[in-house]
Amino acid sequence: MYCKDDFHVERLGECRFDSPLLPLLDYRQHSVNYVEESDRILAENTASSVAHLRETTSELFGLEPAGARRKIFFNPPHTRAGIVTCGGLCPGLNNVIRSLTNELTCRYGIAQVLGFSNGYQGLVERCNRPTVELTPHCVADIHEHGGTILGSSRGDQRPEEIVDYLEKLEIDILFVIGGDGTIRGSMAIADEIAKRDRKIGVIGIPKTIDNDIMFADQSFGFQTALSQGTEAIRAAHVEACGAPNGVGLVKLMGRHSGFIACYASLAVNDANFVLIPEVPFSLEGAHGLLACLKRRLDDAGHAVIVVAEGAGQHLMQSSGKTDASGNSRLGDVGVWLKQQIESHFTSQGKELNLKYIDPSYVIRSVPANPYDSVFCSRLAHNAVHAAMSGRTRMVVSRWHTKFVNVPMSLAIRQRNCVDPNGDLWMTVLESTGQPPRFE
Amino acid sequence: MYCKDDFHVERLGECRFDSPLLPLLDYRQHSVNYVEESDRILAENTASSVAHLRETTSELFGLEPAGARRKIFFNPPHTRAGIVTCGGLCPGLNNVIRSLTNELTCRYGIAQVLGFSNGYQGLVERCNRPTVELTPHCVADIHEHGGTILGSSRGDQRPEEIVDYLEKLEIDILFVIGGDGTIRGSMAIADEIAKRDRKIGVIGIPKTIDNDIMFADQSFGFQTALSQGTEAIRAAHVEACGAPNGVGLVKLMGRHSGFIACYASLAVNDANFVLIPEVPFSLEGAHGLLACLKRRLDDAGHAVIVVAEGAGQHLMQSSGKTDASGNSRLGDVGVWLKQQIESHFTSQGKELNLKYIDPSYVIRSVPANPYDSVFCSRLAHNAVHAAMSGRTRMVVSRWHTKFVNVPMSLAIRQRNCVDPNGDLWMTVLESTGQPPRFE
Amino acid sequence: MYCKDDFHVERLGECRFDSPLLPLLDYRQHSVNYVEESDRILAENTASSVAHLRETTSELFGLEPAGARRKIFFNPPHTRAGIVTCGGLCPGLNNVIRSLTNELTCRYGIAQVLGFSNGYQGLVERCNRPTVELTPHCVADIHEHGGTILGSSRGDQRPEEIVDYLEKLEIDILFVIGGDGTIRGSMAIADEIAKRDRKIGVIGIPKTIDNDIMFADQSFGFQTALSQGTEAIRAAHVEACGAPNGVGLVKLMGRHSGFIACYASLAVNDANFVLIPEVPFSLEGAHGLLACLKRRLDDAGHAVIVVAEGAGQHLMQSSGKTDASGNSRLGDVGVWLKQQIESHFTSQGKELNLKYIDPSYVIRSVPANPYDSVFCSRLAHNAVHAAMSGRTRMVVSRWHTKFVNVPMSLAIRQRNCVDPNGDLWMTVLESTGQPPRFE
Amino acid sequence: MYCKDDFHVERLGECRFDSPLLPLLDYRQHSVNYVEESDRILAENTASSVAHLRETTSELFGLEPAGARRKIFFNPPHTRAGIVTCGGLCPGLNNVIRSLTNELTCRYGIAQVLGFSNGYQGLVERCNRPTVELTPHCVADIHEHGGTILGSSRGDQRPEEIVDYLEKLEIDILFVIGGDGTIRGSMAIADEIAKRDRKIGVIGIPKTIDNDIMFADQSFGFQTALSQGTEAIRAAHVEACGAPNGVGLVKLMGRHSGFIACYASLAVNDANFVLIPEVPFSLEGAHGLLACLKRRLDDAGHAVIVVAEGAGQHLMQSSGKTDASGNSRLGDVGVWLKQQIESHFTSQGKELNLKYIDPSYVIRSVPANPYDSVFCSRLAHNAVHAAMSGRTRMVVSRWHTKFVNVPMSLAIRQRNCVDPNGDLWMTVLESTGQPPRFE
Repeated sequence: MYCKDDFHVERLGECRFDSPLLPLLDYRQHSVNYVEESDRILAENTASSVAHLRETTSELFGLEPAGARRKIFFNPPHTRAGIVTCGGLCPGLNNVIRSLTNELTCRYGIAQVLGFSNGYQGLVERCNRPTVELTPHCVADIHEHGGTILGSSRGDQRPEEIVDYLEKLEIDILFVIGGDGTIRGSMAIADEIAKRDRKIGVIGIPKTIDNDIMFADQSFGFQTALSQGTEAIRAAHVEACGAPNGVGLVKLMGRHSGFIACYASLAVNDANFVLIPEVPFSLEGAHGLLACLKRRLDDAGHAVIVVAEGAGQHLMQSSGKTDASGNSRLGDVGVWLKQQIESHFTSQGKELNLKYIDPSYVIRSVPANPYDSVFCSRLAHNAVHAAMSGRTRMVVSRWHTKFVNVPMSLAIRQRNCVDPNGDLWMTVLESTGQPPRFE
Repeated sequence: MYCKDDFHVERLGECRFDSPLLPLLDYRQHSVNYVEESDRILAENTASSVAHLRETTSELFGLEPAGARRKIFFNPPHTRAGIVTCGGLCPGLNNVIRSLTNELTCRYGIAQVLGFSNGYQGLVERCNRPTVELTPHCVADIHEHGGTILGSSRGDQRPEEIVDYLEKLEIDILFVIGGDGTIRGSMAIADEIAKRDRKIGVIGIPKTIDNDIMFADQSFGFQTALSQGTEAIRAAHVEACGAPNGVGLVKLMGRHSGFIACYASLAVNDANFVLIPEVPFSLEGAHGLLACLKRRLDDAGHAVIVVAEGAGQHLMQSSGKTDASGNSRLGDVGVWLKQQIESHFTSQGKELNLKYIDPSYVIRSVPANPYDSVFCSRLAHNAVHAAMSGRTRMVVSRWHTKFVNVPMSLAIRQRNCVDPNGDLWMTVLESTGQPPRFE
Repeated sequence: MYCKDDFHVERLGECRFDSPLLPLLDYRQHSVNYVEESDRILAENTASSVAHLRETTSELFGLEPAGARRKIFFNPPHTRAGIVTCGGLCPGLNNVIRSLTNELTCRYGIAQVLGFSNGYQGLVERCNRPTVELTPHCVADIHEHGGTILGSSRGDQRPEEIVDYLEKLEIDILFVIGGDGTIRGSMAIADEIAKRDRKIGVIGIPKTIDNDIMFADQSFGFQTALSQGTEAIRAAHVEACGAPNGVGLVKLMGRHSGFIACYASLAVNDANFVLIPEVPFSLEGAHGLLACLKRRLDDAGHAVIVVAEGAGQHLMQSSGKTDASGNSRLGDVGVWLKQQIESHFTSQGKELNLKYIDPSYVIRSVPANPYDSVFCSRLAHNAVHAAMSGRTRMVVSRWHTKFVNVPMSLAIRQRNCVDPNGDLWMTVLESTGQPPRFE
Repeated sequence: MYCKDDFHVERLGECRFDSPLLPLLDYRQHSVNYVEESDRILAENTASSVAHLRETTSELFGLEPAGARRKIFFNPPHTRAGIVTCGGLCPGLNNVIRSLTNELTCRYGIAQVLGFSNGYQGLVERCNRPTVELTPHCVADIHEHGGTILGSSRGDQRPEEIVDYLEKLEIDILFVIGGDGTIRGSMAIADEIAKRDRKIGVIGIPKTIDNDIMFADQSFGFQTALSQGTEAIRAAHVEACGAPNGVGLVKLMGRHSGFIACYASLAVNDANFVLIPEVPFSLEGAHGLLACLKRRLDDAGHAVIVVAEGAGQHLMQSSGKTDASGNSRLGDVGVWLKQQIESHFTSQGKELNLKYIDPSYVIRSVPANPYDSVFCSRLAHNAVHAAMSGRTRMVVSRWHTKFVNVPMSLAIRQRNCVDPNGDLWMTVLESTGQPPRFE
């Protein structure tokens, strides 16, 4: 499935400068063996047996640990960095911007940090979006606000134009905060840079509120988002109990992966049905969702349904369209499900009080919670360490509790999904009591 | 406008029993003059001058102070009370249920408290809704949950059937928690009781998340609701800033009164346009909303609009329908405004990223905040005091910081609205910078 | 008790300038009679009867309504204002600073707003504290933080030195945000100004987290503080339940008035004993606190005690000292009570697990909640209106739900206290079940 | 350091019964290879190189994966379980109790679940503590409250008495939720059970708010606690800024490990000095804490210090005492540090306004946040799976993102500490700017 080269992190060149962090690094007693170039984090942490492991280590791959290096590639006083945020909002964007800025400025002492406005549009000169100089002073409090001070946008721009502008502004390192579409775009930028044989690093900080990135224990903002999601489920439950045959229907994020729906549902235990993209379901039939819902209402008088936005797409007619980020436009499963349920009960002559809640904008626009706040700082620090050491075309991540450098091509090769045969989904089934399949 | 009789609170009969609260009442040093029958709270607290006041006191009316009386009408060991919650959810319903139950049981020692399910449906025997006995034990923690443990429903039932059931269950006091439609219904119940010459008290605790009740400084749940509303406005602001030409549009509660929209907008200062039912507006024209919005986007790149659900009804085609509570069905001004703005900008060929947020269910289903929690307790205690003293066909309220007993007919005579010429709306205009009129 | 002159608000002179708010004021349909000079808010809102009222209006006094006037005293382009915050922290200080700045700058267009650092120290040149120019930009987000961006300090400074500095900096209006000690200090400043026959207005915004100011429905920050206080009581309850014979003891603010203790206790209903300065108590005796506590532990196994910091001072030996603000140094009733209870149970050989919580700094340093946020804005706007119209030696307040101008001498004449014979304390007794007196 | 046997999980005997979860297990497509007995989670996830790994796998050890087995040891209809909570409070205790109860009752259908009161005292008959039958109904809402419905206590009891009582009550499985002292106690219970050759399983769910347990990515309640801790730091910062030479001093939990202090400090970035048990410090000297603090105050006018309760013990005189849990009684570093700093500045004649905040009880008594809530459920489910399969003398944990079964002896062999040479502490140094050592 993987080969060794998949894990290789690209470099711009030899590291010839002493890191300004040496006083901190040297203070460590064991610093002698701190992040040696040959260190690896295992890509897999299970084995059918230790004996088996011993036989198969040829198949075990290692990820490069992230962290500060003693020698760096860029000479700080002559280094300029740029930061851009792309795609939809996610809690923690401002934390990442702030920690990148502080680490680059206060710790590495580089010459300048520029913020580009409105995503990739800001990297194209003719789009005429303002750039702002980012200083520790101007980012001091931004982490207390949701969203991104740089603004965002969807959609790619031509790599040639982007690299023209980077060259014109003499940017040495570009930090790109965005989802898989964005990272694909930044690989094209890195290709164009390579074609021109320039020494500009491109480092990604993967942003996905859906937690669907590979080689990542968890994506930043995910915990904040799931906390917010629980509020919506709680409201749905209260509303469902407040009226005869009350049904609370909540749509949560999750285009391809149902992590937020699963975690938020487990956190409050008020959901009776959880629908995720990874597990197809039927509306009709003796064990279809509608029949199960009717039984639940007959028994308990109320019900809560949590649906991830990417669930049930097989049941709706696709529009065939894509958005500016290249994501296929999903049908709105929440509105569709509301209509299906209402028309079903109407046709059966049964009273129904369905309240539909779509909290997406409120969820994704809150500030990061304390845990995500720390996580964003550590990701950003490691992104800076990687960038200053001349690494490129990679993202920072945390894998099995260690921070790692992951080649972009590896990070986006496939999506992290809820395993329908795994622990998490089994716990959801146990907690909701819903059948393994609606059919 | 008012006459003296408007303020008269009806009584079931003479108070012949000593209050079980006498030990508490007697402890007070000044208890001798505590809530004498002749005490009054002034209905008006302004005067163009004291001299003027002296001349005009013939026009000044007084509300009866609420509170415990030394003599009561009902003999506690032989008294049974019922509680019912009607209409839409509102923070604090469970607090009221809990404090009514505790005061009736622990302080007055009445025989039984029954909770009726699902609003007025629960008061009609053939609807077959369960009744639950409410005890201090079973209500101990309910105030930590939003909604109502009794459930609710919209719509009236025939008063004859209701009084039949009250008689059958030997209910002496009925506590009705609901809005103006509900209170109108309870007046019909009181009429039927009077026609049968029964001694059953009917006491209302006015519930209106919109804060639109007369002779009430503030309705319970209002402060909790406005706090929640600020979260939606904050999200709208973050989303608006996150995309080019971003517009955050938030619909908040307020069928006839824009209090929540005004207060929530003032609390976060992120709103640029506040639209309320009390102040009509135009979309078109050089100073219409659309033109003002375009100017704002040209200047600042983003904008936040807060609209109360009852605003702009004059611009939409009415459906002419009413809901089960008899409220006229409003057009959905949020969705309508979203479409109007989007089609306007599309027709002008301007980019627009509008994010629409409708947080109503999440707002109204949260538990009461600490302030509302105290307020609900005090309202409930005063409702019990009034009921035990034989008062009927009245609601409890707080007026100019004092708790008062208000005849139902007076409480629902008209609505409390935001005064377009008053302090509050002026502060909104000052804070948003929006023009006094869009036209 | 009061005479008419007590309610007279002092003015610097004749109002000769048109208000820049005229466009807003004129928009109002009834603006013709808006805040006429003779308008009054009744100082009292109860009467033993309307008949009685008519006879006694000679004793009824009216407070001047706050609000914008059409004619103002200061010519905005030549007006400079200063703001200072004094004494202990309170939620909402930054909201007040922010709204003063915005109203003075954006609405009245005055020349400059200066912030003085560290309380009255900042008003004395030789203390060498920095002054900062306050602009809408620099105050834009400060309301999201607790505390005060200007810093604070305790203690007065010599009025002569302060007025020297005000004259040197050409300040026309001084806004003073502080408690009764601070307001006393600002009266001395106003005296010195009058002695020099200068036209400098001194306007107070009363700050007291204890809610103990006269002619104020509620002080700003109070609701935020009581919400925070409930968290401490909740924690005390959880801790008390978590150990055998567990006692949770919480000290809350309230030097002279037990409002926070009463409201916070009512909000969560976990307190079994509430001790406030207004109601003396005994430790010893068959009905003393210790005996009651023992009975409670024997019955229920755990107990929660809420004590206001000013309670029980009669039982402790006074240090006789005062702090820099001139407040007498209270004995620490929380620590003292902890020791008394522990030694009592030790001497009786009974197990006791007492957890003592003193949350004061955490309570008073949080940002204002949405309700207080709106309240602070409205207070600040009215303070600016009063100042620009040439009023002085007064504070703004809200009385019976209307904003009013109150002479400083009247505002600090006595303290607002919990009435041991009133509604609030009776509700506390009803909710806790504690005896009316421990003795 | 470890040998293979350290990872061996003890079993009571052969699994002869089909799991009631078979319908869920069988639904899984890959269930055939689900948690085979030989599966292992690697105990270590780093290697200096993959080549090196291959040579050294003899030194790599594997932990047994947790999870449901197809065959179980206990016959559900004849199985009775007990639950006990010991030691100090921690967010999530009620979540664990609730999920244990639900899983045992609803999924495995065992005969009875008993809750023992007040820790190990409840397991000794002569202590006469009540036992409660735990049902899904009675635990339905307990996760919304902090603390533990079972109460707790410190200290061990004689294993003989405990096993006597377990035998008398016919308990088959004992779930023990507690810290390392508690787990040591439960090993003694397991020893006594083995000595009597009884088939009673003893399963631990490790509780440590300090996050100091081995082979655990994170302990339950830790994230909730760190969130609460940030509030105290925020308050300290606001207070420090509010007075001349203001110092905010916060004591946070962490007897042996400074994780909460580190994470909470990183989350808000307001701390200037973080002191943890793992890194000794000096007060005196040119680079001692006092000198650094003075420099900070001279430069910035205010400072925030966060100290873990176990820090600086080398500087205080030990009392030599231990508490009932056998933990050595630490000196109160917060109070001590407050006094040291104050007397230092007094002796230097410098003004100082130090505000000391000790929020421990408030932190540890809150309900679990949504993330911890999910984590507690999953831990509890896995504890039940392990117990039903006959495992004993082990704890459940999560290691490198997988749930695992860890022998008790291994789990308590040493503590998890902040590595002074690791990533986390380096990020703290980078963020605070404090020197690597105070000396």
